[in-house]
Amino acid sequence: MSPGAGTPAPSPAAPGPAAAVLISPIGAPPRLVDPHEAHVSLEDQGLTRGDGVFETLHVLDGTAYKLDAHLVRLGHSAGTAQLPAPSADAWREALATALAAAGPGARDPSADLGAEHTVKLSISRGVPGDQPWAWLTVAPVPKRTFAARRTGVSVVLLERGHDPAEDTGLPWLLPGVKTLSYAVNMAAVRYAHAHGAQDAVFMTSTDHRILEGATSSVVCARHDDGAAPTLLTPEPSRGVLPGTSQARIFDAARERGWAVDYGPLYPEDLFAASAVWLTSSVRLAVPVTSVDGRPVASDPQLTRTLTDFLLGRPGR
Amino acid sequence: MSPGAGTPAPSPAAPGPAAAVLISPIGAPPRLVDPHEAHVSLEDQGLTRGDGVFETLHVLDGTAYKLDAHLVRLGHSAGTAQLPAPSADAWREALATALAAAGPGARDPSADLGAEHTVKLSISRGVPGDQPWAWLTVAPVPKRTFAARRTGVSVVLLERGHDPAEDTGLPWLLPGVKTLSYAVNMAAVRYAHAHGAQDAVFMTSTDHRILEGATSSVVCARHDDGAAPTLLTPEPSRGVLPGTSQARIFDAARERGWAVDYGPLYPEDLFAASAVWLTSSVRLAVPVTSVDGRPVASDPQLTRTLTDFLLGRPGR
Repeated sequence: MSPGAGTPAPSPAAPGPAAAVLISPIGAPPRLVDPHEAHVSLEDQGLTRGDGVFETLHVLDGTAYKLDAHLVRLGHSAGTAQLPAPSADAWREALATALAAAGPGARDPSADLGAEHTVKLSISRGVPGDQPWAWLTVAPVPKRTFAARRTGVSVVLLERGHDPAEDTGLPWLLPGVKTLSYAVNMAAVRYAHAHGAQDAVFMTSTDHRILEGATSSVVCARHDDGAAPTLLTPEPSRGVLPGTSQARIFDAARERGWAVDYGPLYPEDLFAASAVWLTSSVRLAVPVTSVDGRPVASDPQLTRTLTDFLLGRPGR
Repeated sequence: MSPGAGTPAPSPAAPGPAAAVLISPIGAPPRLVDPHEAHVSLEDQGLTRGDGVFETLHVLDGTAYKLDAHLVRLGHSAGTAQLPAPSADAWREALATALAAAGPGARDPSADLGAEHTVKLSISRGVPGDQPWAWLTVAPVPKRTFAARRTGVSVVLLERGHDPAEDTGLPWLLPGVKTLSYAVNMAAVRYAHAHGAQDAVFMTSTDHRILEGATSSVVCARHDDGAAPTLLTPEPSRGVLPGTSQARIFDAARERGWAVDYGPLYPEDLFAASAVWLTSSVRLAVPVTSVDGRPVASDPQLTRTLTDFLLGRPGR
């Protein structure tokens, strides 16, 4: 293990892509390209306007997790943004091509689940007057993700300025669309780092209702009667991006007979919880260790169970 | 004049860049590159996260207008987004290099002001682990801009979902920063086109207070006493991007002894106005001909005067 891997660095470089495939224009056969070469024009509207959509997904030992859920959400994003999307078959072919060309995945040193890759699927509107295009990149999961899984993360609560539920029903605001326009999400994470925390969770400005992490969903557990936990997450219909990992965890919990509940959640609910996690495809379920500098409870056994839910493994 | 130039097409292709200069990394000497080649990585955070800032400016007969104001706003954007910015000297050198390499500008067939170029200055955070970089592109002003100046544009009012004033004081929301994350602005323009209009103006969802155009400021004129007009624009401190063109127009109007006023403006104020414009650097002052399908007044003489204000010419 490299020195300092025990404490996630504030902003380490992610490893570059190990393989990249272009689908350009959309409808063309997936084409393996050198990930270290430039492929994008200075006039591409994905670059100049953040005008595109994406998904990030997790590959373990060559198998993509929740691929259908990601393709459904990508299709919704592209449709709302009036972008074409490659077919599921084209994405599957692109993924297989990229994985075959990529190096081995990275292994989590503290919980070796297998060889892990991060995969990004993106669609850009392209150069004005030209056609939209798509690309897929594969990279080993970065060490900081493994560190976060092991040590958990401290988070700060940041006001979102407005309730994103106000965007519902206004399609020009692209509600629920995972666009390439993520500058605010990235700024929130930088703000967290600059203030001694490792990640950011948004809340409404008015009543401080918990919304979502900057690039994750928020899930917490409550043990009302000491028996099975109740899992909670903020109401997904209220302008929060519906998390594919949160949904998978809740589906598995329901199958096990656990209660699940959809907020509203407030900061005091996080402090009263028996555990709090940020969930997303590659990080899986990362325990939150503190909120605004104040410790929150954690439950390593339940973290392992949620990870099993995500990986479709029999519960430990 | 090409066929159909009298009616702006909904979404015509802009001409590609005539010249491009990279400043990569920031601090390196500006370097002329082929604008038709790819220069950007699939992993560039300007592309994958809309994580960067930009300015668009107008060059007429080789002279950049409001260059200092644009560099000040770009510096503010970069500073708030924690990005480095090239020095003013580096940008001036990049601009001179690109203009020398670019073809002739385009001429507005109905109001030949000279040879006109659109210039974009952009900064991206770059590939993770690598350094931020900047670029400048020069292109002839597109015909649709000339058409809009001549015929004016119809606009739809679109709810912004929230009052952007709520973002003030929350730096992680990048208030007042002109980021590359413009997906919503572009979606608003597409929505306008799909609904028979040519551009979009945002208003608050709650009280329908006018905010700004999707990529422009809103300015209107009122003739209270039939003498000099009063120019009005929405209060710039309330989360609206401060427009360099609006500011230049108001400065010149004040010098001429006209009254200027900063909202609040509501839809009824647009219908009561003696003229309404969308203002931005390259389009200059484009008359609004209708709002939500209902005609608004225009004043061709005053449009010419505002254009003169923007170009620093003696009033006609």
